[in-house]
Amino acid sequence: MELLVTYDVSTVTTDGENRLRKVAKVCEGFGQRVQKSVFECVLNEADLEVMRVKLRREMDLGADSLRIYRLREPIRRYLEVLGVDRQFDIREPLVL
Amino acid sequence: MELLVTYDVSTVTTDGENRLRKVAKVCEGFGQRVQKSVFECVLNEADLEVMRVKLRREMDLGADSLRIYRLREPIRRYLEVLGVDRQFDIREPLVL
Repeated sequence: MELLVTYDVSTVTTDGENRLRKVAKVCEGFGQRVQKSVFECVLNEADLEVMRVKLRREMDLGADSLRIYRLREPIRRYLEVLGVDRQFDIREPLVL
Repeated sequence: MELLVTYDVSTVTTDGENRLRKVAKVCEGFGQRVQKSVFECVLNEADLEVMRVKLRREMDLGADSLRIYRLREPIRRYLEVLGVDRQFDIREPLVL
C-alpha cells in the first residue's frame, strides 16, 4: 500500500534535534523523501509494522507527532505539485 | 473531497520566511493545521481552484514546494497517528 508519512519533532532541545535526525533516518529506510519532513512509502503490512516499531523507539511520544496516511493509489494520479517537485537524494546529509 | 497539503518553503532568506508565513496563512483559510507545514482540507473543486490561485501568488515557484494529495475518505479511517495528535488552533500566532 502507498503511504504518506509526515512528522513534527519538537526541536526545542538538543535531544529533539537528535530525535528528528533519527526519525528521518528510519523513514529513509522505508520510503522516498519528498519534503523535509514528508516521505512517500510503498509498504506491505509487515514492513509497516517494522517501521512503526522503529519509529516508536526513536520518538518522544509525549512531544513528537507523526502521521501515517494511507493514500489513494497510484500516488501520482492523486497528487498535484505546485512549485518544485523535489526528490531528495537519500544519500545527502540531513540538513533540517 | 479531502486533501492533504504539505509544503516546504525555502527559508534561506528573509523573503523565504515571509513566504512561509503567507503560504501558511492561505492554507489556514482552507483547512485544519495538523503539523507545522501540513494541513487537512475538505474542499470542492471551486474552493481548491481558489486555494491554488492564492498559493501560487505567495509562493516562489522556483524555490518552494507544495504538494496536494487527494486522500482516501474519510481521513480518520485511513490515518494513524504516533505520538501527539495535534490540532493547531488557527487563532494562535504562527511560530514556525
